[in-house]
Amino acid sequence: MASAETARARTLTHVDPVEVSLQVALDALADPVRRSILRDLAAHDDWTRACGTFDLPVTKATRSHHFSILRAAGLIEQRDEGARRLNRLRRPEFDAAFPGLLAATIDRQAD
Amino acid sequence: MASAETARARTLTHVDPVEVSLQVALDALADPVRRSILRDLAAHDDWTRACGTFDLPVTKATRSHHFSILRAAGLIEQRDEGARRLNRLRRPEFDAAFPGLLAATIDRQAD
Repeated sequence: MASAETARARTLTHVDPVEVSLQVALDALADPVRRSILRDLAAHDDWTRACGTFDLPVTKATRSHHFSILRAAGLIEQRDEGARRLNRLRRPEFDAAFPGLLAATIDRQAD
Repeated sequence: MASAETARARTLTHVDPVEVSLQVALDALADPVRRSILRDLAAHDDWTRACGTFDLPVTKATRSHHFSILRAAGLIEQRDEGARRLNRLRRPEFDAAFPGLLAATIDRQAD
């Protein structure tokens, strides 16, 4: 029987960046909270940042929504480890699908 | 006294790309009709395309709105010549303010 943790992980839907349209990618990047999440992930090693550790000026429900949008745009990968949901920026595969887009958005200092 | 044409031209507000935030730039680019206008301009010489000549699936009012958004994001420059409103993609100055952003969005084939 599936454990509660496995069931929780099953609710995570990931999309490969090659399946993402430019429209979906731009919609995901055209939000300051989501760009701050991505910049934070870019500044840390993969799988070291848990969802709850991001300093975001939004409610928990809104936070979950932002992570969901980022998964659907092929920008992040998530996995559950105990009570924590860890994150990885899908940099290599997103860069391959959308060359230069992260460099032109989250890499620049000015927002 | 100002001619009708001068008065019409005066309603055009332009914003220099250096004054534009990344948020405003991304909002402007995150629309398929606006990207099609920009791609069309990129494929033609400056000041050769009049607003009325773009093949867009929108009403005249919506079309005007899109051009207004593009001016406000520092993406296009417009000037009136007789009854025609001519356009120029502000490629050099937008590229200087947002390196790689047009290359990552309107230059790519897939949308």
